[in-house]
Amino acid sequence: MTKIGFIGLGIMGKPMAKRLLQAGYDLTCYDINPEPVRELVTAGARQGRSSKDVAEQSEIVITMLPNSPHVEQVVLGADGVLAGARPGTIVVDMSSIDPTVTRDVSAKLQKKGIVMLDAPVSGGEPKAIDGTLSIMVGGPQDAFDRVRDILLKMGASAVLVGEIGSGNVTKLANQIMVGLNIAAMSEAMVLAVKSGVDPERVYQAVRGGLAGSAVLDAKVPLILQGNFKPGFRIELHIKDLANALAAAHEVGVPLPLTSQVMEVMQALKVQGKAEDDHGGVVQFFEGLAGVKVRKS
Amino acid sequence: MTKIGFIGLGIMGKPMAKRLLQAGYDLTCYDINPEPVRELVTAGARQGRSSKDVAEQSEIVITMLPNSPHVEQVVLGADGVLAGARPGTIVVDMSSIDPTVTRDVSAKLQKKGIVMLDAPVSGGEPKAIDGTLSIMVGGPQDAFDRVRDILLKMGASAVLVGEIGSGNVTKLANQIMVGLNIAAMSEAMVLAVKSGVDPERVYQAVRGGLAGSAVLDAKVPLILQGNFKPGFRIELHIKDLANALAAAHEVGVPLPLTSQVMEVMQALKVQGKAEDDHGGVVQFFEGLAGVKVRKS
Repeated sequence: MTKIGFIGLGIMGKPMAKRLLQAGYDLTCYDINPEPVRELVTAGARQGRSSKDVAEQSEIVITMLPNSPHVEQVVLGADGVLAGARPGTIVVDMSSIDPTVTRDVSAKLQKKGIVMLDAPVSGGEPKAIDGTLSIMVGGPQDAFDRVRDILLKMGASAVLVGEIGSGNVTKLANQIMVGLNIAAMSEAMVLAVKSGVDPERVYQAVRGGLAGSAVLDAKVPLILQGNFKPGFRIELHIKDLANALAAAHEVGVPLPLTSQVMEVMQALKVQGKAEDDHGGVVQFFEGLAGVKVRKS
Repeated sequence: MTKIGFIGLGIMGKPMAKRLLQAGYDLTCYDINPEPVRELVTAGARQGRSSKDVAEQSEIVITMLPNSPHVEQVVLGADGVLAGARPGTIVVDMSSIDPTVTRDVSAKLQKKGIVMLDAPVSGGEPKAIDGTLSIMVGGPQDAFDRVRDILLKMGASAVLVGEIGSGNVTKLANQIMVGLNIAAMSEAMVLAVKSGVDPERVYQAVRGGLAGSAVLDAKVPLILQGNFKPGFRIELHIKDLANALAAAHEVGVPLPLTSQVMEVMQALKVQGKAEDDHGGVVQFFEGLAGVKVRKS
């Protein structure tokens, strides 16, 4: 069985690594936090002493880390993946990071004959636990073919969208649309409420038409209950929009509306709401108008 | 059979009036343009000499006009509906206008015992021809019950959302979401293209997730062809957003993101693109980045 290394056992990484163990893979794990490593070892994984050590023992190294600097450090740093991996190793970075960093890290791995794929996911913790994530992959076709079955133990789908970095570009495009669609729903619902119209009836009247969206169906029922439990935290969406703006400016794409949503989320962070679900963006627009969309 | 008056036989009104004739209603028509009136008369309608005349001959008066000032003039002006209608008449304004104007016109009708419903539609000319519009209605339940069957000759659905003006509030909420979702898709797709990622693959990768929307499914295939034939013209969306901003400011709701989309559409109008489909909003963002999403 393919020897897989897994680095980064956080909220997402831990259940993803468990899925691979359950599928019978020979797994070596590492995290700076010893707690989840112990949990994985109890479940049958080997314990790596460092990212370098994990890479030395693996044919395929998966990383699932918070953001770009963590990926740079874990892959390129002293005791990192680059220091330990043999030529021919495939590094699959499943973190959601700035695609400019992805391409830079990939170029450095390539010099040692190590192939990189970027494979960020969407779906959050519940789908990580169920193994039903959506995985967007960038990199060479042959490397994708070699890891496809492994990815499908963690995801319901794994789609190769283009060259290295394309996975993260796709993820950022996704997060731009989700963020703006949430803001769109928020302005519309706050207008309805302050105009004296029942927001639930507005939702029912428009959801089947051109205004319909997955955001509307997922978030309106929660907003009507005033339920902003995450889900996907505003803090994380801020991270994704920061990466989107950085990547866009790097390639020469101004994002005037995304930058507005970023500032809306920053305002909510200032108000102590960074841990709310991103559906809680509605609270910014409620605050502007002095009304609540929630019923009761 | 109920005697219906129909005022406003434009791109939308003419096919809607025809649906009522085909359903066997006794219809009296009026428009300042004699052409469509002749067409309706040939199809079996009576010809009204003025809006007042139409109202005198009808139990229910339907208006389908371009914008708020036209509704004010046709209903409240000399030779208007108010001057001709008897107490007990129901006026159904199916135009998309500022709900503040709706409430004002309704109050003036009410003093003479005339009931008003606002019943704007979505779906555009093809659905007007097929009689499959979505109709969002505001006003009293008993008046709605009396006209419901008539509305369902023109629409696939007719939903009472609340008091008078609620139909237009719902329509404006709809147009806010559609406009912003189009802008969201545009920023995301332009980022993908200038990052070297195939926009069609991005679309396929994200459409089933939280970024999915009716806008994405309706507009991306057209944008990939560079097809901006209307559809729904930017000029009309500008009208709707102007009404949304006016209505929102009237009730005390700032719409910071909607106002940005308004300015994007104004920029396209300056560039001579007001007759393009609102999916053509992508051209503004293409212009900022100096790329095209279309695959030629």
